Amino acid sequence: MNEVIQQLKAHRSIRKFKPEPVAEEQLKAMLDAAQMASSSNNAQAYSVIGVTDPAIKEQVAILAGNQRHVAECPLFLVWCADLHRLKTAIELDGSEKMPNTNKTENFIVGTVDTALAAQNAAVAAESMGLGILYVGGIRNNPKELSRLLGLPQLVYPVFGMCVGVPDQEPILRPRLPQAAIYHRNRYSSAQVEEHLQQYDAVYRQYMLNRSGGKRDTIWTKDIATNFRQKQREHMKSFLEEQGFELR
Amino acid sequence: MNEVIQQLKAHRSIRKFKPEPVAEEQLKAMLDAAQMASSSNNAQAYSVIGVTDPAIKEQVAILAGNQRHVAECPLFLVWCADLHRLKTAIELDGSEKMPNTNKTENFIVGTVDTALAAQNAAVAAESMGLGILYVGGIRNNPKELSRLLGLPQLVYPVFGMCVGVPDQEPILRPRLPQAAIYHRNRYSSAQVEEHLQQYDAVYRQYMLNRSGGKRDTIWTKDIATNFRQKQREHMKSFLEEQGFELR
Repeated sequence: MNEVIQQLKAHRSIRKFKPEPVAEEQLKAMLDAAQMASSSNNAQAYSVIGVTDPAIKEQVAILAGNQRHVAECPLFLVWCADLHRLKTAIELDGSEKMPNTNKTENFIVGTVDTALAAQNAAVAAESMGLGILYVGGIRNNPKELSRLLGLPQLVYPVFGMCVGVPDQEPILRPRLPQAAIYHRNRYSSAQVEEHLQQYDAVYRQYMLNRSGGKRDTIWTKDIATNFRQKQREHMKSFLEEQGFELR
Repeated sequence: MNEVIQQLKAHRSIRKFKPEPVAEEQLKAMLDAAQMASSSNNAQAYSVIGVTDPAIKEQVAILAGNQRHVAECPLFLVWCADLHRLKTAIELDGSEKMPNTNKTENFIVGTVDTALAAQNAAVAAESMGLGILYVGGIRNNPKELSRLLGLPQLVYPVFGMCVGVPDQEPILRPRLPQAAIYHRNRYSSAQVEEHLQQYDAVYRQYMLNRSGGKRDTIWTKDIATNFRQKQREHMKSFLEEQGFELR
């Protein structure tokens, strides 16, 4: 196993950062890596807002559900799917308006392009000793966040990312048995219950360790609890307002 | 700049592969890396179908728009967003049915989880000297593909990935100027036209080089041409049939 794979396998989310800033060269290396990720038809349908201004970062933290690590990390990246730039390209080519932006297909393209680029940036960051945290909480109040960051039509915030020098050393979170996520030639759910029960036991031990014995829970229970909660019911109408009609 | 970043910056899509198979240990390393990618609330909402059976691979190639590299690569991975496994987890917890799967939010979670995992697998593959190609063409005929691979409700194929030993050495594809995709504290489209024109010139030279002088085109023109075509108009109704209602 080579060093790259060792690094990928050692990923853990960081929620506590040292105050020192992310150097410009480090940010540039992350963006260089992000930009070389694959992109659907080379559309490069994403933008990144790097928030370092403390007042704006504080606002973002509040909108993300008052996540203190968002305010406290030195650099908070907001990863956005961006069809706005493509619209500009099409206008430069001589068309008046963007055809077909209201398609679910283009929503997928923008979302996937954004995630592939972001993951390359995350890997680059960790290779330099930085730590990261993906923050889905920026979808809690996407309308207010979009106003705060000046996102135009056809741009939507997919997720955020805290970046900084780690000030904690969390244990690795065990994942599902590989047989649960990998299928040979055809999808199989034959053994899924056994896989999940096996994972429940491993996850229970992990949660006990992580919480110093305080959280005694299993994965299936935590998943069920999460999915019984409301799931950001505003996303569809927010996306429509931003020009993503998902037709 | 360290070796990980060097590797990320050296990515190029591979469309011609040597016939030798991807070793089991290589596949395992790719999946190990994929599984350690971040995941929304640890939902791990994705599955991977590894297609090595030549007859099935041939069918997938045809459904993806008769892409010969899909038939010819030794391993074709179909990366799927998977809420089906979560449904099983919720049932094991004692609930009869999955709440809230019809939310756009969960569609985003599944799509992003899938892309982050896939990109880690891609990086792991390239670290071992393998080459990869993302294949959006599996969304050309997603219903037939889902039937072929036995995808249950609440699973959808996001993209495919050819994997194998490269049998070509393509030149790197230049990307947009970094200033076009990165914004400081607030989105700015002030200079976007200049950035795109600057990229058009670089892209034109790249396309001429790659085609041996045959393709004289610019990015804005290629983007406009692509987006004037129909954009997989079936995706919304296909997703609804698979249980993703995007409410």
